[in-house]
Amino acid sequence: MPILTAGEFEYIDWIRKRTPAHPRVLVGPGDDTAVLKIQPDRPLLVTTDMLLEGSCFLLDQAGPKAIGRKALAVNLSDIAAMAGKPTAAVVSVGLPRDRGREIAEALYEGMREVADRFDTPIVGGDTNSWKGGLVISVTILGEATGSGPVTRRGAKPGDWIMVTGPLGGSILGKHLNFTPRVREAMALHQATRLTAMIDISDGLAADLHHLCEESKCGAVLKAETIPITIAAHHLALDSGNSALEHALGDGEDFELIFTVSPEDGKKLVATQPIAGITLVNIGEIVPSGFWIEEGGVRKPLEPRGYVHEMR
Amino acid sequence: MPILTAGEFEYIDWIRKRTPAHPRVLVGPGDDTAVLKIQPDRPLLVTTDMLLEGSCFLLDQAGPKAIGRKALAVNLSDIAAMAGKPTAAVVSVGLPRDRGREIAEALYEGMREVADRFDTPIVGGDTNSWKGGLVISVTILGEATGSGPVTRRGAKPGDWIMVTGPLGGSILGKHLNFTPRVREAMALHQATRLTAMIDISDGLAADLHHLCEESKCGAVLKAETIPITIAAHHLALDSGNSALEHALGDGEDFELIFTVSPEDGKKLVATQPIAGITLVNIGEIVPSGFWIEEGGVRKPLEPRGYVHEMR
Repeated sequence: MPILTAGEFEYIDWIRKRTPAHPRVLVGPGDDTAVLKIQPDRPLLVTTDMLLEGSCFLLDQAGPKAIGRKALAVNLSDIAAMAGKPTAAVVSVGLPRDRGREIAEALYEGMREVADRFDTPIVGGDTNSWKGGLVISVTILGEATGSGPVTRRGAKPGDWIMVTGPLGGSILGKHLNFTPRVREAMALHQATRLTAMIDISDGLAADLHHLCEESKCGAVLKAETIPITIAAHHLALDSGNSALEHALGDGEDFELIFTVSPEDGKKLVATQPIAGITLVNIGEIVPSGFWIEEGGVRKPLEPRGYVHEMR
Repeated sequence: MPILTAGEFEYIDWIRKRTPAHPRVLVGPGDDTAVLKIQPDRPLLVTTDMLLEGSCFLLDQAGPKAIGRKALAVNLSDIAAMAGKPTAAVVSVGLPRDRGREIAEALYEGMREVADRFDTPIVGGDTNSWKGGLVISVTILGEATGSGPVTRRGAKPGDWIMVTGPLGGSILGKHLNFTPRVREAMALHQATRLTAMIDISDGLAADLHHLCEESKCGAVLKAETIPITIAAHHLALDSGNSALEHALGDGEDFELIFTVSPEDGKKLVATQPIAGITLVNIGEIVPSGFWIEEGGVRKPLEPRGYVHEMR
């Protein structure tokens, strides 16, 4: 924003010096807007996420570099959830007045690490200092692949519900160090016909419920089939909740939930076509209701995650 | 971000109910990303700006609706500075925990007022509550017009320096209630050949200096020709600075500085082709140096604005 301090100008220069040329970027940081060359006739994807100190992260515990990585990665996970390909990112930050520059540099390094790994140039931003805590807002653009974006809307009764990895306990570390499933989603979209997809940020039950609301349908999860992380088992030792409850309720797993026809689901499970991950069928779309089946007994499933303390 | 409260879900629903359909928006708020239909082969523009309570605005004095308007308008001004056409906006907010919802609604109403006026649908966002002050980050996408984007880079010695309106004293009100020069810039870009352009957010001297740095040239301003607002004269009564100094140094005028060949400049001044504004020649691009000429005497010009108290 207006009235930059000398330090903010220096920081912009520091960033510009570190910004490599990229064939998609016609004008990068340093003009009024960035200018991008995009694929003609490919729908454009846009997503934004803000991380706030003390609410989304504890700066002293995570460190600014990990926060930078996470700020990029949570947005890339949204692009993945549409089976899209990331194009570019812009970043705005509010820096605490004391040690703002030091934080800013580590933050940028963390962001660049993830940006480079996913070929997502950081093309612009806005740097501010204030007396509040660290705030970072990232917007990522992407493009749909040739088969179009995968929304939350297309699930049909009978479809299989599948996930891309084990769930729960991300607070023990994965929430700061996960791989957004960008490549996996694009490979899946090529390998099969995805009817709906969402990434797990609020928790399996909550996010599956979002997908069901948009698709105007219900779901039954099969408890015994839900893949559970070791971290969820660890947490269950003294959290008062079972490992399954952690897998259902914990946020920030950033795996994908997707739906496919039973025929396509069977093929995916048998052939496991996506390198590095195991696709698991965890339930079925039904006309209405929201259930979990355990030991053959179907019970209503609460669609909310439970809020846990941040670490 | 993850782990939304019930109030945040309700707020998203409240927004979705108010979001009209738009031919450019294939998927609006409520999925993992927005999906936009864009013009093939038009370069894409992206800009982001963050407003922070206590640093960029005083919430109690301005009120959330005016902040919402401003958050959209400052970004539209950046699109204008490229002579671009806005396409869509995404918004992320950090809301103070007390009276967050009340602020959020007024903020959205202010944003929508400006968004609707400039045909810029708000297609997505991220809502958070925290214990800090109000933070709002807006990203606007746009597209270059057929003649391409106008960067800061093309000014040449001999070019005329022109502005779209009187300057200074925006702190007395205009900074919360300005018209981003989107339409004027597009009309100008059709009417003449713009060699470089920038919007005035940091102040005339500071922003002209940015333009000169990018164009690798210098500038001479003619003091007697700079249009000065009544507000600048008011401020000068007890600020200790002259009205001219306010016109040179005050931020947030959000008029445009642009450069054209002398021939084109003469035509613009004579024909005044842009409805509602008066185009004024305030100086000339030179090979190097940064100067102001007053009463025939050329003096070095300090390229920085002076920081003033917020009102």
